[in-house]
Amino acid sequence: MIIALKSGVNQEDLKILVADLEKLGVKVDYSQGANQTVLGLVGDTTVINDEALRANHLVEKVIRVQEPYKRANRAFHPLDTVLEFESGGKTAKIGSGYFTVIAGPCSVESREQVVCIAKEVKNAGAAFLRGGAFKPRTSPYSFQGMGGAGIDLMLEAKKECGLPIVTELMEISQLELFENVDMIQVGARNMQNFNLLKELGHSRKPVLLKRGMASTMTELLMAAEYVMAGGNDKVVLCERGIRGFDSFSRNILDLAIVPALKKKTHLPVIVDPSHATGLSWMVPAMSKAALAAGADGIIVEVHNDPEHALCDGEQSLTPELFKNMMETLRKYAAIENRII
Amino acid sequence: MIIALKSGVNQEDLKILVADLEKLGVKVDYSQGANQTVLGLVGDTTVINDEALRANHLVEKVIRVQEPYKRANRAFHPLDTVLEFESGGKTAKIGSGYFTVIAGPCSVESREQVVCIAKEVKNAGAAFLRGGAFKPRTSPYSFQGMGGAGIDLMLEAKKECGLPIVTELMEISQLELFENVDMIQVGARNMQNFNLLKELGHSRKPVLLKRGMASTMTELLMAAEYVMAGGNDKVVLCERGIRGFDSFSRNILDLAIVPALKKKTHLPVIVDPSHATGLSWMVPAMSKAALAAGADGIIVEVHNDPEHALCDGEQSLTPELFKNMMETLRKYAAIENRII
Amino acid sequence: MIIALKSGVNQEDLKILVADLEKLGVKVDYSQGANQTVLGLVGDTTVINDEALRANHLVEKVIRVQEPYKRANRAFHPLDTVLEFESGGKTAKIGSGYFTVIAGPCSVESREQVVCIAKEVKNAGAAFLRGGAFKPRTSPYSFQGMGGAGIDLMLEAKKECGLPIVTELMEISQLELFENVDMIQVGARNMQNFNLLKELGHSRKPVLLKRGMASTMTELLMAAEYVMAGGNDKVVLCERGIRGFDSFSRNILDLAIVPALKKKTHLPVIVDPSHATGLSWMVPAMSKAALAAGADGIIVEVHNDPEHALCDGEQSLTPELFKNMMETLRKYAAIENRII
Amino acid sequence: MIIALKSGVNQEDLKILVADLEKLGVKVDYSQGANQTVLGLVGDTTVINDEALRANHLVEKVIRVQEPYKRANRAFHPLDTVLEFESGGKTAKIGSGYFTVIAGPCSVESREQVVCIAKEVKNAGAAFLRGGAFKPRTSPYSFQGMGGAGIDLMLEAKKECGLPIVTELMEISQLELFENVDMIQVGARNMQNFNLLKELGHSRKPVLLKRGMASTMTELLMAAEYVMAGGNDKVVLCERGIRGFDSFSRNILDLAIVPALKKKTHLPVIVDPSHATGLSWMVPAMSKAALAAGADGIIVEVHNDPEHALCDGEQSLTPELFKNMMETLRKYAAIENRII
Repeated sequence: MIIALKSGVNQEDLKILVADLEKLGVKVDYSQGANQTVLGLVGDTTVINDEALRANHLVEKVIRVQEPYKRANRAFHPLDTVLEFESGGKTAKIGSGYFTVIAGPCSVESREQVVCIAKEVKNAGAAFLRGGAFKPRTSPYSFQGMGGAGIDLMLEAKKECGLPIVTELMEISQLELFENVDMIQVGARNMQNFNLLKELGHSRKPVLLKRGMASTMTELLMAAEYVMAGGNDKVVLCERGIRGFDSFSRNILDLAIVPALKKKTHLPVIVDPSHATGLSWMVPAMSKAALAAGADGIIVEVHNDPEHALCDGEQSLTPELFKNMMETLRKYAAIENRII
Repeated sequence: MIIALKSGVNQEDLKILVADLEKLGVKVDYSQGANQTVLGLVGDTTVINDEALRANHLVEKVIRVQEPYKRANRAFHPLDTVLEFESGGKTAKIGSGYFTVIAGPCSVESREQVVCIAKEVKNAGAAFLRGGAFKPRTSPYSFQGMGGAGIDLMLEAKKECGLPIVTELMEISQLELFENVDMIQVGARNMQNFNLLKELGHSRKPVLLKRGMASTMTELLMAAEYVMAGGNDKVVLCERGIRGFDSFSRNILDLAIVPALKKKTHLPVIVDPSHATGLSWMVPAMSKAALAAGADGIIVEVHNDPEHALCDGEQSLTPELFKNMMETLRKYAAIENRII
Repeated sequence: MIIALKSGVNQEDLKILVADLEKLGVKVDYSQGANQTVLGLVGDTTVINDEALRANHLVEKVIRVQEPYKRANRAFHPLDTVLEFESGGKTAKIGSGYFTVIAGPCSVESREQVVCIAKEVKNAGAAFLRGGAFKPRTSPYSFQGMGGAGIDLMLEAKKECGLPIVTELMEISQLELFENVDMIQVGARNMQNFNLLKELGHSRKPVLLKRGMASTMTELLMAAEYVMAGGNDKVVLCERGIRGFDSFSRNILDLAIVPALKKKTHLPVIVDPSHATGLSWMVPAMSKAALAAGADGIIVEVHNDPEHALCDGEQSLTPELFKNMMETLRKYAAIENRII
Repeated sequence: MIIALKSGVNQEDLKILVADLEKLGVKVDYSQGANQTVLGLVGDTTVINDEALRANHLVEKVIRVQEPYKRANRAFHPLDTVLEFESGGKTAKIGSGYFTVIAGPCSVESREQVVCIAKEVKNAGAAFLRGGAFKPRTSPYSFQGMGGAGIDLMLEAKKECGLPIVTELMEISQLELFENVDMIQVGARNMQNFNLLKELGHSRKPVLLKRGMASTMTELLMAAEYVMAGGNDKVVLCERGIRGFDSFSRNILDLAIVPALKKKTHLPVIVDPSHATGLSWMVPAMSKAALAAGADGIIVEVHNDPEHALCDGEQSLTPELFKNMMETLRKYAAIENRII
């Protein structure tokens, strides 16, 4: 961390500032140029309160050189994290060397629906089944998901098709229902629900953490850090579109965050083209682009009857379109030496 | 709701669509022009699933004329809601005719700090004391607030100064600690924490609901609707800045939402210039602008020692600057016939 | 400018970098801390190419402490610029101590229209007449303005009402038509039309420079600097709304840029609430807010028949509503000691 | 176009409105439902002034079903436009079936530099040479390009390497210098410089039109329409990143606009990953993603000495990295049956 001081600072005040900083355990490197005094802070600067520093009357600018995250930081963990999931006698993996496809309906609606879709996506090559039981809906008058009964149906579908399952948790009290769920999804709207993140840090379940609609890359990594600080290192990051000013797609799929994240963190990074675009006919193109950009996988919506889906029908692929897309993705994966 | 159909729709398919819509309790008004067929839906269209409609192969466009919120909607409740709070033998009000100033530290840090600031802001004319006990912080390594002990200190400060208090709730399980808190704040990051909103709908406490950083006006009103749908009509809306592309202020204070909200809803609307700008020297100008734009109040941060504040020092006014600002605000309030 | 170097830099390479920088006329202040080497550049760093520096393999971070603008910079010109315009035997002023109202139709449509509106806005207290002759329209099929004939009608209206006039220039070749125009407007879409700005730098006409829809404050000031670098110091800056993600108003009126600009530059700053909101019923609230935020004036659209305006009818005030607004603005101006 | 009327409209006023609309040459389809009256406008609604309609006191909502562009509209020109360029005895093409790579330095700096890079990119498989002679720079104190001398050097490089060239035009008066340039670039900042677009409509030169930093897809297509309305149908659209709130890349590369544009228009669509990300190490990943998303080509910056580039060094690939990237792109192109 570099602190540029204002010109003509009072030396007594400066001593107090330096002493305050040293009390926090960092070493203060004092560099007096002819015209500018600069403090260089060495050590664990994640404990420094930038805001108070900026309010200090001696300070001109505060610049973080070091990233504020530790456990998620590739600098301290150079090797890629690869998560493994045992289910149906097989091992599904997410991370470097793989391109993992997670597919299924937006919402669980019935046993028939979820089992049927589960078999279809498995046959087409998906590695995970997704499906929502607790649904975050903008309107209190919209279908809110089947709740616990939906989780049960997901588990039945898992039994039938053998795929590990991922489904969204909206509140800490639901956690016990997720005992047999393979990966817990935290939705974009909960990315900074810090109490929920802390609680998941005490769990040993992998967490699929979606980027908030107006979250920076650093904020996403700090959200992962909340989970990891609790001892749970199994976090998968997911770009799912950010808010933009145009309406040709629901959100803006910010694919450049994929290489940016891969540089900064060892955690796996996947992409959700269904929620990002909101339009099923865009999903194959953006899924291929996600692979090309370096993503470790995608999470997509597949529905056997999109016109009657209880939510997000407009963005769901039919099983047939999903199958076609998978065939193309396999060709792309071959170029990049990814196992699909 | 208006549904523009594609040209050349199959009449049998159309009958099925119309029947499906009528099952939901709306009346379907069929308007066949020479070149365009348009369905007009009359009744409670909040139950309609726009997404499934858009996925329907007959449909060209879906346009909502009616707003999707009911209880928050001024159309159904033309009179302004004015909330009343009894404390210290006085009544504080928020809503039409008043300009209510809520002031206090970002975080509760100690008894001395919060009582001292409470007295200062009361003397300067604040109607409410604010102060955070549970703090949503981007980093898990930052000060997370004093928690329950912070709530106790806020209650002591309330006893000393007589002002009603508002403080932030981050999780449902904290609710019992808020029994004597006068108004519960829901932060921007929790605006779409729907489980939390539903729970507050069962409470009888007034809720101060902050707009999310990338939330539309309609989403904010739908979040209020979540609380109100549970039976709790006491919601105060708060504009606190949205995410933008520039860095001269922390967020963009979107003041035009004030008149827009006043037109659409009967709920009180206040503004938080401290979090929106992140810079204390901008707070007086933006507080005056909030009043001028028609806000029913402001919530601002005041700290007796901003340089040593445990959070957000850069955006906190000193008590003296707060007092000066209140004097100007009183002149502005006089022009607009607002009681301050 | 501060340059933080990577750790373990090669001393020979560093010498070359320092020599390259010194060739540009800046003094390089070398600060070797125990763990971090920092170069401080002193002198006129506006000549430094940040991009090449960032591409240098020795460099970790580049931080500008000094602003990249000079003539627009309050640091070098502490006193507020106040522009004076002689017209109709009177002097109109824009700048500190004044709140200048510029009003008129979006487009000049006919002699009757512009003269009628000119008289109305003058009687209500406007200091300038605005009106578009060359209109930047999104569609090539929309009304493109009356062109030169529109300028002539503006000049006639000026003769009739005595107010100085401001109208938009879209292309350098139009410049000769603007000989008797008092202030030349550069629209938001041309804010970074650098050739146009350079040309206006050779003119002696005051320039009303509107902020681009996605321009930062620094980019706006650099656009002003383009004009000023040519020798023309008469620039008025105008906030007119930036692009946002919501649709309740056309753009986001970013009022916090007003105090931010007043701190950074000596140039006058005005606000255009008509284009920012696109809705006439919001204009009075946002005009008052602009004054409260510290703006030196506003530019608003007034039309005698908004329903038949050839452009932007939805955002134009009627003369009667304009008159009412002016009455309230006078009360606000009195509090702030502004001459209206 | 659909106009939803307010309830209880006056029939006389309605007759006037309908007559006004019919005067513009559209047929008005009157659909009276039980509760809502809807007007359907048939014919060339590009002549309708939406803004005046919205200001009309009878009107509740105005919805465009038809797109406001005609010549750029795929609905009227179903077949893809493929542009052909003769140079050096070969034909370069841009459009369906091809993946055209345009490469070269940000700025032309010297004969040696541009000829050297031209040969390198040609050998690696580029189809076009790019290079800036007139440079739009944020600062008036930055290098503004070599101007006409730069165009001459581009023409020399063309002679040496045989590739057709593309370079940016900033002002109408420069047009005569572009006589031997193969394609004229209009930069993002000039996307709505309507006078420039109109002038290029009278030219017969192909135009590479870059999306503005905050422009919607419709605005981009309307800008193309300005050129095409003048009779010049040779327009190539280019996504080059939009403004966002994060800083991990310079702009947000909005790749979903590629399939969206391909659906709406017959014009070729290319992507500029260099300006979008501002970081050379991201360019290969985002170039592959552009191809995967369906783009007809890319335009990338290549510099033989990025650390000493006079502009944008941080985003320029070295010739070697460019060559490696081309090899991978050929594999991707093979999957998609694109000729590279």
